[in-house]
Amino acid sequence: MQSVGKNIPRIDGFAKVCGKAKYVDDFFVPGMLHAKIFRSKIANGWVKGIDVSKAKAMPGVEAVFTYEDVPQHKFPTAGHPYSLDPHHQDIADRNLLTQRVRLYGDEIAVVVAVDELTAEKALRLITVEYEEYAPILTVEDAMKEDASEIHVGTKNNIIKKTDYAIGDLEAGFAESDHIFEDNYVTSMVQHCAMENHSAYGYIDDNGKIVIVSSTQIPHICRRIVGQALGIPWGRTRVIKPYIGGGFGSKQDIVVEPLVAFLTKALHGKPVKIEFSREETFIASRVRHAIKFYFKTGVNKDGTIIARQVKAIANNGSYASHGHSIVSNSVTKFRHLYNQKAIKGEATTVYTNLPTAGAMRGYGIPQVTFGLESHMEDIARQLQLDPIEFRLKNSNKEGYVDPLSGITSNSNGLPECIAMGKELIGWETKRANWPAQTGPKRRGLGMACFCYKTGTFPFGLEVAGARIVLNQDGSIQLQVGATEIGQGSDTVFAQMAAETIGIPFAMVSVVSSQDTDVTPFDTGSYASRQTYISGMAVKKAAEQIKEKIINYCWGMTDIPADALTTRDGWIIYKHNQEQVMSIADVALDSYYHELFSAPITADVTNNARTNAIAYGCTFVEVEVDIPTGKVEILEIYNVHDAGKLINPKLAEGQVHGGVSMGMGYALYEQMLFDGKTGKPLNSNLLDYKLMTTMDTPAIGTGFVETFEPTGPYGNKALGEPPAISPAPAIRNAIFDATGVKIYEVPMNPQRLFERFQAEGLL
Amino acid sequence: MQSVGKNIPRIDGFAKVCGKAKYVDDFFVPGMLHAKIFRSKIANGWVKGIDVSKAKAMPGVEAVFTYEDVPQHKFPTAGHPYSLDPHHQDIADRNLLTQRVRLYGDEIAVVVAVDELTAEKALRLITVEYEEYAPILTVEDAMKEDASEIHVGTKNNIIKKTDYAIGDLEAGFAESDHIFEDNYVTSMVQHCAMENHSAYGYIDDNGKIVIVSSTQIPHICRRIVGQALGIPWGRTRVIKPYIGGGFGSKQDIVVEPLVAFLTKALHGKPVKIEFSREETFIASRVRHAIKFYFKTGVNKDGTIIARQVKAIANNGSYASHGHSIVSNSVTKFRHLYNQKAIKGEATTVYTNLPTAGAMRGYGIPQVTFGLESHMEDIARQLQLDPIEFRLKNSNKEGYVDPLSGITSNSNGLPECIAMGKELIGWETKRANWPAQTGPKRRGLGMACFCYKTGTFPFGLEVAGARIVLNQDGSIQLQVGATEIGQGSDTVFAQMAAETIGIPFAMVSVVSSQDTDVTPFDTGSYASRQTYISGMAVKKAAEQIKEKIINYCWGMTDIPADALTTRDGWIIYKHNQEQVMSIADVALDSYYHELFSAPITADVTNNARTNAIAYGCTFVEVEVDIPTGKVEILEIYNVHDAGKLINPKLAEGQVHGGVSMGMGYALYEQMLFDGKTGKPLNSNLLDYKLMTTMDTPAIGTGFVETFEPTGPYGNKALGEPPAISPAPAIRNAIFDATGVKIYEVPMNPQRLFERFQAEGLL
Repeated sequence: MQSVGKNIPRIDGFAKVCGKAKYVDDFFVPGMLHAKIFRSKIANGWVKGIDVSKAKAMPGVEAVFTYEDVPQHKFPTAGHPYSLDPHHQDIADRNLLTQRVRLYGDEIAVVVAVDELTAEKALRLITVEYEEYAPILTVEDAMKEDASEIHVGTKNNIIKKTDYAIGDLEAGFAESDHIFEDNYVTSMVQHCAMENHSAYGYIDDNGKIVIVSSTQIPHICRRIVGQALGIPWGRTRVIKPYIGGGFGSKQDIVVEPLVAFLTKALHGKPVKIEFSREETFIASRVRHAIKFYFKTGVNKDGTIIARQVKAIANNGSYASHGHSIVSNSVTKFRHLYNQKAIKGEATTVYTNLPTAGAMRGYGIPQVTFGLESHMEDIARQLQLDPIEFRLKNSNKEGYVDPLSGITSNSNGLPECIAMGKELIGWETKRANWPAQTGPKRRGLGMACFCYKTGTFPFGLEVAGARIVLNQDGSIQLQVGATEIGQGSDTVFAQMAAETIGIPFAMVSVVSSQDTDVTPFDTGSYASRQTYISGMAVKKAAEQIKEKIINYCWGMTDIPADALTTRDGWIIYKHNQEQVMSIADVALDSYYHELFSAPITADVTNNARTNAIAYGCTFVEVEVDIPTGKVEILEIYNVHDAGKLINPKLAEGQVHGGVSMGMGYALYEQMLFDGKTGKPLNSNLLDYKLMTTMDTPAIGTGFVETFEPTGPYGNKALGEPPAISPAPAIRNAIFDATGVKIYEVPMNPQRLFERFQAEGLL
Repeated sequence: MQSVGKNIPRIDGFAKVCGKAKYVDDFFVPGMLHAKIFRSKIANGWVKGIDVSKAKAMPGVEAVFTYEDVPQHKFPTAGHPYSLDPHHQDIADRNLLTQRVRLYGDEIAVVVAVDELTAEKALRLITVEYEEYAPILTVEDAMKEDASEIHVGTKNNIIKKTDYAIGDLEAGFAESDHIFEDNYVTSMVQHCAMENHSAYGYIDDNGKIVIVSSTQIPHICRRIVGQALGIPWGRTRVIKPYIGGGFGSKQDIVVEPLVAFLTKALHGKPVKIEFSREETFIASRVRHAIKFYFKTGVNKDGTIIARQVKAIANNGSYASHGHSIVSNSVTKFRHLYNQKAIKGEATTVYTNLPTAGAMRGYGIPQVTFGLESHMEDIARQLQLDPIEFRLKNSNKEGYVDPLSGITSNSNGLPECIAMGKELIGWETKRANWPAQTGPKRRGLGMACFCYKTGTFPFGLEVAGARIVLNQDGSIQLQVGATEIGQGSDTVFAQMAAETIGIPFAMVSVVSSQDTDVTPFDTGSYASRQTYISGMAVKKAAEQIKEKIINYCWGMTDIPADALTTRDGWIIYKHNQEQVMSIADVALDSYYHELFSAPITADVTNNARTNAIAYGCTFVEVEVDIPTGKVEILEIYNVHDAGKLINPKLAEGQVHGGVSMGMGYALYEQMLFDGKTGKPLNSNLLDYKLMTTMDTPAIGTGFVETFEPTGPYGNKALGEPPAISPAPAIRNAIFDATGVKIYEVPMNPQRLFERFQAEGLL
C-alpha cells in the first residue's frame, strides 16, 4: 500500500486553514436578494388572516409571498434515494409555506428584499390572525384517543408503527431464569454544525434553476426541488461548495425548495436564504427524542435468551425521514448480541415540536444508550462481570441476521474491548479501586456498539466516480459523494492513487458537486462514503489502470498480464523493473496520430453489500455528588472500522464523534415551554454545547480487521464514534455512585434529583 | 429530422441579449490584482538597463517583474494540438518577458497593482535604456543577405521555406498555349473581436493554477501554460466562459502564461490582465500580409495545364503558428481547380512587426484573393466567360488530391455558382449592361473558393463529448469544443437531440469549458467543430440511444432491434407506436434496485477524415472614379457546406464572415511608421473597421449537398464566408473600370492611384 493506510494530510486542509476554501456565503452574485421567513408565534393552529401589505410597501422589499402564493405540490424532505415503489417513498407532508401551523416557528410567509436587514424589518410589518390550539408536545399527548390530528388523516398522530419478531418471544421469556425490564429515555438535541443552513438560487443561461447550497446531498436536493416546484427534475441544478458540517441536518432539504421558488417567481433574480442559528435550531432538524422499553430474559449462566424492545419516537411537526430512524433503531442494534427470540416495536409520532430527522448515528446512539445501560444493569444485578457478560453474548464473525440476511464478515469487537481495557488500565484500576464514599466519587464504565455501513438492503446504494488521466500522468477525480468536513476527498484521492499506482500528489479532486456534470451519488450519510462511494472510486481507478497497462501493451508489445503499476510507473510484475512512466502513456494517449483518446473512466457502482462496524467506549469519571457535576477523567473510543484509509483522519472523526457523544450524554437538550411550545434555548448561549474547555483529551483506538466487502477492507467510521460514549459515561456514573440514570442528558440537575431520590443527598 | 436542419434559436441567445451571459470581465474575485505590461517604445533592439525601483515603491503596487525575473522556458503560442514528433512541434521562440526587443510594444516588464489605474501610473515610472537597431519591416529587408537576425539562428530571418510539386511544371508550361504571370498582395489586418484578450488567474484549493480566459482553445492553453512555466501540464486548469469573439486571434495563447506566472509568483493571489484595444492590435495576433506570385499555363481551349505559386508571408516578430498558415495557403487552394502540373513554394519570414497568427480562413482568404483575381484576368484576356472558365477547370466530386489523399466526396460548386448567378440576376444584368463611362461605374464580379474542413491529416483531430441522461429524460451535454459566438452550443444540442430522439428543449449544454472536467478537445478553429466535434457528439448520443433502447429491452422484453426513439419516446420501428417514454427508462435507470446506473456516455473521437466545402461570392459594385470609393450594391455569398444543421445560424455565420471579408477587401489595414515601426492606427477610430452603416445587405445562399464523412452530412462553414468577397469585389471593380487591382485593401487612396496610373483620372 502506497497511499491507502497512510497519514496523508487533508487535501483541503491548507485552503480551509487559510480561509481560502469557499462556502455558500463566500460567493457573491451581483444583485443578490435576501429572503427572510415569517414564522408563526404559536405552535399549533391556523392562520385565519394575514396582512402583508405594509411589508410589501416598504422600500427595499422586492416581494412578499404567503402560503396562498406557493405551488400546492406536497413534497418530502428526507435525504433518501428516490424509490420506484410508492410505498417506500418518503412522506410528502409539507408545502413551501403553510396556513396550518404545526410548530412554533412554522413557515407562513417570506419577504424578499435588497438586504437581510430590510427583510428582517419588513417581517415586523406583517400582521397575522391565528386560530390557536393547545400545542401537543409529548408522544403521550399526541397518541391520546381524542388528540387532534396535526396532519389530517394521521390517526392518533402516529406516522407509522411497525414491529418484527424472530423466534418465540414468550417461550423465550418463559425459559429464562431472570427477567429484566427498564425504560430509557433520550432527548432532543441539535446538530449545531458551524455553518447554518444556507442556499442561494438563480436561473442560469440554460433556463435552469440553480441552487448553490450547503447540503450533504446535492443530487437528492435536485430531485426534491423538482418535486416541490412540480417541474421536471432536470430543470434544476444543485451546486455544493465546501460546507461547514452537516451531521445529518443537511441530509434534509430545508431551504432549497423555497429558494428555488423565489428565484423562479422573481424571473431568475438571485435570492438567498441564510438561516440564523435560532432558525437552524427550530426549523431545520433535530435528533429524535426516543423512549425505550427493554425487557430481557437471561439464563443463570448469563446467556441472553429473549429480548423485547419498544421505542416511541417524537418526530415533531413534519415527517422528514419519517419512521425510518426509530425503525433503524429497534432493528440494527440486534446485530450486537445474540438471543434466541427477539421482538422489536417502533412507533413514530407527530407532535408540535421541531421536526426530527437524521443525526449522526440515525437512531443507534439512542437505542445504544438504552441497550448498553440495560446490559450493565443486568450484569451488575446478576453479579457478572459486565464485560464478560457482553463478550459472552456478543455475535461473532459469520453472524447472519435472520431477517435481513446482513452478514458480519469481520468482527473485531473482542479485540476492541481488550484494547479499551488496556488503554484505560481497566484491570489495574479495578484491582486497586478504593471504596467511593466522599462527595467526589470515581467510576469506570464502558459500552459497546455495532453499526451497519450504508443503507443496503433498505435503501438504494448508487455511487459514481469519474477519472480523467492528464497528459502528465496526474488525474482529476470527480465523485458524486460529498466532502462535508469528514475528509472524504482526501481518502478518495488516496484510493485512486493506490489503485492506479500513482503518487498521491498526482491526484486532484474536484471537490464541489454540480449535478449537471458530477457523477450521480446520493450523498453523504449512513457512514457510506468510504465504503459505498469508495467502491465506485476503486472501480473507476481499476479501469484507468487497466487502460494504462493495455495502452502500454500496445506501445511495447509486453503483455498486460506481465505488467502492473506503481508510483507513477508501469513496471514488470516479476521483478518490479520500470517499463515506462504512466506520463509517457498519458502523453501518447492524448496525441497519438491513430489512437489518440485520453484515458478516462466514468463508473457507477450499485453496491449490494454491507458491513458491520463495531467498537466500544471506556471511560473514567469523577462525580461531584453535591452538585451533580460529572468530570470525564479519561475516555477511550475504540473502533473496528476495518482497514483504515487514513489513520490520522480516522482519529479526527473519532474526536469529533466522541465530543458529540459526550455533549449528548452530559449537557445538550432542547427545551420548550410546556404550555406554548415556544423554544427556550434555541441559541448557542443557552444550549449547552461543549466547548473546547469542557472537552477532555479523547483517546482513540483502532482494531484493523479486514472487511472483505469493503473496497479496501474498510467499513463505517463516520457515525460510530458518537454512539457509545453516553452509555459508557452512564455506566461509569453508576459505578461511581451506585445510582442508575435512565435519561440523557445526565446534567447536574438530573443527577442532583436522582441522587436525592436515591438518598445520596 | 426533428432537430437537425431546423431554425432553432440560439440557446445562449436570451442570456446574451439580456446581458446575463458572463464573460471574463464579469467575474469578480475578491482581492483581484491588475497587471499591466511595460512595452518597448522601439521596434528592434536590446534593453541595456531598466530601473523599476520607482514603480515598485509606488503605493498600491504589489510587484514589478522584468525579463530577469521570469522563467527561461521558451514556449510556443500557436493553438495547435501538441505533436509527439519534435519536428512537428510549434516553434518555441519567446519567454514571458524579453530583453531582446523585436517589435514596437514588445513585453519587457510587468507591474501588478491593486487596480488598473495604479498599474498604468506605475508603468510611467519605469525607465529603460535601449540599444536600438533599425527596424526590419518588410520581407524583402528581412531576407537580405546582410539582414540582422531577429531571432538568433534564423538565417535571413526565414522561419521556414517549403515547396511541393505535382507533375512536371516546366513541361506543363512548355505545353501551354498561354502563360500568365502576376503578383497579388494582401495586407496585415486585425481580428477586432469585440472582447479584447483578457484572463485572470489564481491558485485553487488543490494548488492548481487556474486561468479563466477568453480563449478558443482551453485545453491547448493548459498545455502551453505548463510549457511556459515549466510545470506539469496537470498542475494548471483553464476555464473558458462565454467569449466575445475570437476569429483565430484567441487560437493563440497571448496573456495566459504571464497571468499564470504572476499568480504563482504572488502565492496564488488573483491577478488579471486585460488588454486595451491598442494592445490587442499590436500584441495579440494579426492576419499575415502575404505576397503571391502566380504563373499559369493555359491551353487555347481554356484548360489550365500548369500552375506555379510562390508566397512570402510577413510573420512579424514571433513565430506563433509559424509556417503553417502560408503553407496552408499555397497547398489547399489547389483543390479548387485541376491542372496537370503544379508547384507551390512558401516562405515565412520574421520582421519587426506584430506577430501574425491564425485568422478566419488561415491563409486561404489571402491565396484566394490572388487565385481568383488571376483566374479572372486570364479569362478576360482569353475572352472566355470567367464563370465558364472556372467551371471548366474546377475539380469535381471524387477528386483526390495526389499528395495528401484528401478526397472531395461532395461538391456543390456548380450549383453554388448557378444559385449566385440567379440571386444577383447575372444573366439579366449582363444582357442589359450599359457601357460604363461616367464618374460612377458599375461592375459585376464573382469569385469561387474551396475550404478544407478541420486539419486532418496535418493536425490531430481529437474531440470529446459527454452526455448524462437525467431522471426526466433530459440530458446535459458537455463538449470540449468551444462556443465562441458561432453558435456551436446550439448546433451540438440539435445533434444530440436528433440522435437520441428527444425534443431539443430537453438538451442543456454545459457551455463553459473547465479543463479539469470537460472532455478533451483541441478547441475552436479550422471550421472543425460541427464536423469534428459534431462526430463526437453524435457518437456519444448514439451510445445514449443504444443504452436507452437496451434498457427498455430489459424492461419490456421487446428486442432492441425492433425499437427506435423519437421525440422523447421509445417507439416500434415498424409502426412508430409508442412503447414507453425515455423518461420512464431514465427514472428506472437511476433507481432500479438491481440495475441502477444512470445512463451516461463519455466519448473521444479521433477524426481521420476531412471534407472540402465550396462556394462563391457574387457582387455588384458602383465605383466612384474621382474619389476611388466603392459601393457594394448587392452581394451574395453562396455555400456548399453540406447539410446545414441550423440554417438560421448558418446565415448568421455568413453575414459575419462576409462583413469581415468586405472590410478586408475595402478598408482594413494596419499601418506602421516606415522608420520606427511604430503602429499608426492601432485603435478602432483610425483602423477603418466597417460599421453597420458601411455594411450593405448581405445575401446568402446554400446548396445542401450531403457530405458522407460529416456527422450529419455537414462540412465547414465557419471560415469560408470570409474567403471569396475580396476577389469578387476586385473582379467587379475590374468589370466596372477595366482596372486591375493587385492589392487589398482596395481603399480610395489605392484606387485613386491605380485610376491615375491607368489614365482614368
